Amino acid sequence: MSLSGVIPPVCTPLTPEGEVDTASLVRLADHLIGGGVDALFVLGSSSEVAYLTDAQRRTVLETVIGHVGGQVPVLAGAIDMTTPRVLDHARVAAAAGASGLVVTAPFYTRTHPGEIRTHFRTVAARTGLPVYAYDLPVSVHTKLGADLLLDLAAEGTLAGVKDSSGDDGGLRAVILGREAPFSVLTGSEVTVDAALWMGADGVVPGLGNVDPHGYVKLYRDAARGDWQAARAEQERLARLFAMVHVGGARMGGSSSGLGAFKAALHLRGIIDCPLTALPQTPLNEDEVGRVGKLLAAAGLL
Amino acid sequence: MSLSGVIPPVCTPLTPEGEVDTASLVRLADHLIGGGVDALFVLGSSSEVAYLTDAQRRTVLETVIGHVGGQVPVLAGAIDMTTPRVLDHARVAAAAGASGLVVTAPFYTRTHPGEIRTHFRTVAARTGLPVYAYDLPVSVHTKLGADLLLDLAAEGTLAGVKDSSGDDGGLRAVILGREAPFSVLTGSEVTVDAALWMGADGVVPGLGNVDPHGYVKLYRDAARGDWQAARAEQERLARLFAMVHVGGARMGGSSSGLGAFKAALHLRGIIDCPLTALPQTPLNEDEVGRVGKLLAAAGLL
Amino acid sequence: MSLSGVIPPVCTPLTPEGEVDTASLVRLADHLIGGGVDALFVLGSSSEVAYLTDAQRRTVLETVIGHVGGQVPVLAGAIDMTTPRVLDHARVAAAAGASGLVVTAPFYTRTHPGEIRTHFRTVAARTGLPVYAYDLPVSVHTKLGADLLLDLAAEGTLAGVKDSSGDDGGLRAVILGREAPFSVLTGSEVTVDAALWMGADGVVPGLGNVDPHGYVKLYRDAARGDWQAARAEQERLARLFAMVHVGGARMGGSSSGLGAFKAALHLRGIIDCPLTALPQTPLNEDEVGRVGKLLAAAGLL
Amino acid sequence: MSLSGVIPPVCTPLTPEGEVDTASLVRLADHLIGGGVDALFVLGSSSEVAYLTDAQRRTVLETVIGHVGGQVPVLAGAIDMTTPRVLDHARVAAAAGASGLVVTAPFYTRTHPGEIRTHFRTVAARTGLPVYAYDLPVSVHTKLGADLLLDLAAEGTLAGVKDSSGDDGGLRAVILGREAPFSVLTGSEVTVDAALWMGADGVVPGLGNVDPHGYVKLYRDAARGDWQAARAEQERLARLFAMVHVGGARMGGSSSGLGAFKAALHLRGIIDCPLTALPQTPLNEDEVGRVGKLLAAAGLL
Repeated sequence: MSLSGVIPPVCTPLTPEGEVDTASLVRLADHLIGGGVDALFVLGSSSEVAYLTDAQRRTVLETVIGHVGGQVPVLAGAIDMTTPRVLDHARVAAAAGASGLVVTAPFYTRTHPGEIRTHFRTVAARTGLPVYAYDLPVSVHTKLGADLLLDLAAEGTLAGVKDSSGDDGGLRAVILGREAPFSVLTGSEVTVDAALWMGADGVVPGLGNVDPHGYVKLYRDAARGDWQAARAEQERLARLFAMVHVGGARMGGSSSGLGAFKAALHLRGIIDCPLTALPQTPLNEDEVGRVGKLLAAAGLL
Repeated sequence: MSLSGVIPPVCTPLTPEGEVDTASLVRLADHLIGGGVDALFVLGSSSEVAYLTDAQRRTVLETVIGHVGGQVPVLAGAIDMTTPRVLDHARVAAAAGASGLVVTAPFYTRTHPGEIRTHFRTVAARTGLPVYAYDLPVSVHTKLGADLLLDLAAEGTLAGVKDSSGDDGGLRAVILGREAPFSVLTGSEVTVDAALWMGADGVVPGLGNVDPHGYVKLYRDAARGDWQAARAEQERLARLFAMVHVGGARMGGSSSGLGAFKAALHLRGIIDCPLTALPQTPLNEDEVGRVGKLLAAAGLL
Repeated sequence: MSLSGVIPPVCTPLTPEGEVDTASLVRLADHLIGGGVDALFVLGSSSEVAYLTDAQRRTVLETVIGHVGGQVPVLAGAIDMTTPRVLDHARVAAAAGASGLVVTAPFYTRTHPGEIRTHFRTVAARTGLPVYAYDLPVSVHTKLGADLLLDLAAEGTLAGVKDSSGDDGGLRAVILGREAPFSVLTGSEVTVDAALWMGADGVVPGLGNVDPHGYVKLYRDAARGDWQAARAEQERLARLFAMVHVGGARMGGSSSGLGAFKAALHLRGIIDCPLTALPQTPLNEDEVGRVGKLLAAAGLL
Repeated sequence: MSLSGVIPPVCTPLTPEGEVDTASLVRLADHLIGGGVDALFVLGSSSEVAYLTDAQRRTVLETVIGHVGGQVPVLAGAIDMTTPRVLDHARVAAAAGASGLVVTAPFYTRTHPGEIRTHFRTVAARTGLPVYAYDLPVSVHTKLGADLLLDLAAEGTLAGVKDSSGDDGGLRAVILGREAPFSVLTGSEVTVDAALWMGADGVVPGLGNVDPHGYVKLYRDAARGDWQAARAEQERLARLFAMVHVGGARMGGSSSGLGAFKAALHLRGIIDCPLTALPQTPLNEDEVGRVGKLLAAAGLL
């Protein structure tokens, strides 16, 4: 499987009690597939994976994979601190029928590049699934260097990378350096045309929850070589992306960004409740109003 | 319960296959209690909590709490990324009979001081156990400020703090600012006499696994006002602590530090196997040899 | 003056004694202008500005501005910790005839966004020269946010930004948000086609010292809409850029990167001596050999 | 010269126009010497060295050294980004009659431990003065490790260290590891009794500008073994130190801390004007009022 195209990290709708709202989750999956996306990525950062209990993670996996029924591949985040804990999540994801795993470098511990290699190698060896590295220094406080990624690609450990580092120079080094098939996916919502231009295979946009059609149009414009159209679509989406800052300094970046995505999905009628998990700060009425204005300006409301 | 004294974070011995070696764990608990410690802290960073699966964490809790049988309190780390996941660990710890919980600020997510307050308040409200804040910026990339700790102490949310930040100025601000009973425990192995001198209530020393008698002597010397003896003992222990650097730049800090503690416990005959969990780098023969020399120099071999 | 095009940060050749080698500096300026660049930027990070004494900085300014004689604009870095010290450098640069100033946020001190605004406003008000913000978080440990830059652009404080943050999402936010003329220049050597595609006005490439013709070709290809040619040229330059890693973990990043640029300029016969300033680590023979191979592969030797 | 005792980093009073107020500076020096301090340290971080132009730095050196006339040693900060620039400051300080130099690791550049060694060795070799390492990671973003310091001490490069890292574990490692005479001075205002207890030789307290008598009493209490009295004095000073937070989130840490020291000196009648240099944010009336209350509570007003 060589992944490409638009692969949104699926938000996890919650009930007012904080449990997974499976009805809304199914509607969201349909909304995304209906928007033309190429695969789904559940249990990523935009899915609030860091906030979901193991039982909730399992519910998400079974709900989405069961509902999708093979229409598109479903990648699963196996996000935890170290190898043994990641392996536990990986086993659950494999049993649920995930098409591939998304795995970060170890975090919380003080690690080392050699240990990061051991980590990915062990996860790949002990699961039968393609492993995608998740490069997310803002969360794990380690940047996956191009050399490390290219070595792990060449030896067959990694099937690809989801690069949410914002470092497009590093992204290009991986694109230019790869020899075996290796999916390079950008996680930066606002430079997708540029990443595709450089040779990236696809995008994993959190904002794609809100506007999957936009990212699909952008990808398809680029794929058929109409870069002007791709750029115009990207610029529209970049203006919409401003919603992630709506909470400002009043809250953490996760609360603001994920709160905005969920508020937008709620305003668009796709999910029943915009709640984010504890201990995130909820958006207030004014902030939700500003999300609504951005949606309206983007033609989505 | 107002905790004081020596409360070692109990290492988790593993079998060669990477499972919890309960026989060695029981021996280690006996070694610590025999050394005179005042309480045990399982599932802390020195326990490799970041590497233990949920099943292994449960095994540790049940093994130690069951074996100790109330001789001393047993604190349990409930270490995970956010509130819902911490609550899951807290429930398991409570069911196993833990005397209190040790909880860090959220990590992996981009958080905010207001959200950290919500986090501790929620954990305290939903469990019936005393909650100790675990200030560990090297792992969670957030420093718990004195104001935040003192507010949460005054309102009764927190029962104490384990300060592993290395910032003794901040430690003193908490000591001088507290009004209600609030246990201040240092996690810095090499400045214990100084912390006690400032008014700290106790110490949570990873190195206490290797030499509990030393830390107990240090604490008791200080408690009866013989500061010269306390300092001499601390200086002996500070020299022993050099073992944590034995792996140097060849590996991550966790591998070197926890590897050294386990190598020392193995050399002293307390645990059967010095293995650390994946993806940590094992110490080589030379490095183990240097641990042995430091043990010998400290009169422990 | 609205700056655009290729504006290399001019390396500062040194004699074996560590003084500015003005003959080599003049040759380098001719090499760059002969390569077709649109302006020069002296006393930037790639110029080793952090290593040059005030007297050496003055020599560089007078040598280059005097030699260039108005053929192209010459920007001058006024790089120091805070406003009063930056103003001193700015006065020297203005007296020497610089066309504009390049200024970072304060560093060494613990600063605040409001203070960064005061800093740029004061420098702009007290000098008669256009001020370009230099966004270089790797050196000054502060990221200039899009909001701050756009505010300072709208009020006329800043004439542009040199973005060396590597954050192309932030770069795009500035491009999309600017209303007044405001030069957006990327400092990332390997994503220039992408930055121009997004609407950036130009590039300030350290590697442009070594191969100005390449960056000029890339810029002109893009300017006339031949993006395929621009990308091909950028990819050639991206492979050449690998030279900056030649020193590996044996030395600091400045030593390796600036050492490689100077080794390449020496191998190409443009400067007499490849020495970098103290306390940088010199490249060894093997490392210089690898620079030579990259030059040969790029058709430059 | 083996330095010990209380060595305050002398604040630099400014006129309303931002120039060095030499009359106030002389009064401040007299206030400190009258308070019993053992030496003065000019051009440190608390002296706003980062904000002073070269001419102002020279004025400070000549004013203080000239006025003090050898009553106590005067150390001079030679604070700049790299070796050549530090050497320039060092020459001025030597010519002015400084007794020793205080030097940080390189900053702004991306450096390496080997290059930090070269830096200190070069400065020591090319000046005839004792060199004290200034360990200030909050400003220079590099921590000076105990191994590096001990090596440079053993070879005679360094005469001592001013440790403002807040890492008392590292401080102790240097104290226990030193063999040759090597002055260990803490820069942490609120753990001085603890540092002296561990074997430190003295303290460089910014707050010592405001209350030199307090730090001198603390040091002398400790020196004659009356640790209870030393602790009581330290606790009084720790409460006074709260003034550094008076500006809160409204400004940067330098503005708040240095603004508070200067406001206190102004309220106490020692300096004529509490201005801090640009681009720092001035304290407002309410904030100055709170500084006054802390002074009153400490018996200083």
